[in-house]
Amino acid sequence: MPEISVAFQGERGSFSEEAAYNLLGRRIRVLPQETFAATFESVARGAARHCLVPIENTLAGSVYENYDLLLAKNLHIVAEVNLHVVHNLIAFPGTTLKSVRQVYSHPVALAQCSRFFESSPRIERIPFYDTPGSVKMLKERRIPGGAAIASSAAAEVYGARILKRHLEDHRENYTRFLLLSKTSAVPRTATKVSIVFSTRNLPGALFKCLSVFALRDIDLAKMESRPLRGRPFEYFFYLDFLGNIKEDRCAKALAHLEEVTNFLRVLGCYKKAVK
Amino acid sequence: MPEISVAFQGERGSFSEEAAYNLLGRRIRVLPQETFAATFESVARGAARHCLVPIENTLAGSVYENYDLLLAKNLHIVAEVNLHVVHNLIAFPGTTLKSVRQVYSHPVALAQCSRFFESSPRIERIPFYDTPGSVKMLKERRIPGGAAIASSAAAEVYGARILKRHLEDHRENYTRFLLLSKTSAVPRTATKVSIVFSTRNLPGALFKCLSVFALRDIDLAKMESRPLRGRPFEYFFYLDFLGNIKEDRCAKALAHLEEVTNFLRVLGCYKKAVK
Repeated sequence: MPEISVAFQGERGSFSEEAAYNLLGRRIRVLPQETFAATFESVARGAARHCLVPIENTLAGSVYENYDLLLAKNLHIVAEVNLHVVHNLIAFPGTTLKSVRQVYSHPVALAQCSRFFESSPRIERIPFYDTPGSVKMLKERRIPGGAAIASSAAAEVYGARILKRHLEDHRENYTRFLLLSKTSAVPRTATKVSIVFSTRNLPGALFKCLSVFALRDIDLAKMESRPLRGRPFEYFFYLDFLGNIKEDRCAKALAHLEEVTNFLRVLGCYKKAVK
Repeated sequence: MPEISVAFQGERGSFSEEAAYNLLGRRIRVLPQETFAATFESVARGAARHCLVPIENTLAGSVYENYDLLLAKNLHIVAEVNLHVVHNLIAFPGTTLKSVRQVYSHPVALAQCSRFFESSPRIERIPFYDTPGSVKMLKERRIPGGAAIASSAAAEVYGARILKRHLEDHRENYTRFLLLSKTSAVPRTATKVSIVFSTRNLPGALFKCLSVFALRDIDLAKMESRPLRGRPFEYFFYLDFLGNIKEDRCAKALAHLEEVTNFLRVLGCYKKAVK
């Protein structure tokens, strides 16, 4: 079987890479990209079959840039996966837990481990451009007393040691990732639908949009809004609901939704991830 | 009359300062702060009477950090103002439009002027920590061929010249700011209400929440969601609606909303800004 190629943003050993292995297994070809835009683009131009991008974190919130890219690029959501985010203190031989003086990581990861730093006042936090990138940098520069905060995949990729697991303040830290593809494929087992729409200029417009689901007992999973450029203080709404677009009630709900929206696109229909 | 003190994030000459003058006039004492958290804190501890913070931009979207701070800090929204964002090319004597080689500004401002840079390929974009801060830095360092992108207030504050106005790609670029205070005051002229709530775990929960407004013909202006920490994939909803909490139908809508939420707070009732 040919390898499946998967693009993601960030250096090798990122949480995206860990999520890709959880979803697709180890026999994939990973294609790290510098930016989210480049990650989407690599699928659009055919360099990668899929890309895997974070869409929300249960502590930090939505990854708004990727919501915008879902609309701007014409990719389809074909799967989702939730990753339990565990932050590890990682170093190379010669540095022990007691000798750590500087910790490098992405500012979001540093912020999610604030209690560890409060209890270790002698350790300095140093913001770095990328979480696994901080492990890669330590591999190259071997800074005495230097450590990084990153995924276990990063420790594995760069041959480093995990000094301490679970540095994060909140254990309930999950990131939801979407697997995107150039072509859509709706499996019969799909149980979740993602759409984006803008409302007509009607009184109670958003209420009418949600009623097409409520009147058919269709559960909503998530709603997000983003600005509609060129129309100040109007919005695109991104909605996830439970169902399959091939089901009669979902097809009817979407037809009904078209009556009360002036723009509607199905972004994908896929199997809901287990937490 | 004693001066009103207003805290805002960023250096002197920021868009927040421009918005503060538009809302409150010139006779205010401005208190620049390093971060949004410090800006909220300065009002909470009584160092400033008010703070003015951006909450959404019609191109970039919501300022999510300030949504979180509205919930975390117990401040009240007492007014709003919309600022038409105009990006200006600013330099000090000796640098003309033709001699500009490097332009410093905040990455968001640089991104919002991409067409200007595409039509001037000899000019380098240099990201800087703060929009007016880039003007301040040029005043101190006088870099030959150096210019900044910032508000007209920044040019005024630092005694610089505007070489070119309207560098922005989209003219429909507005930022909405909220004026916050430690104590709430609801003027009779207030026409807008901001609330935050979390839904009960019921089928069609969000639909039921919106129905309390739709059934009373109350218009919604904006809805935003943010993660509920510790309860993965559950959300706080921030809602702005048109009305005054002293009106009977609004009071009844909020009482009705309490029946279908497990948390509800009124963030403020204030006069809707004219665009």
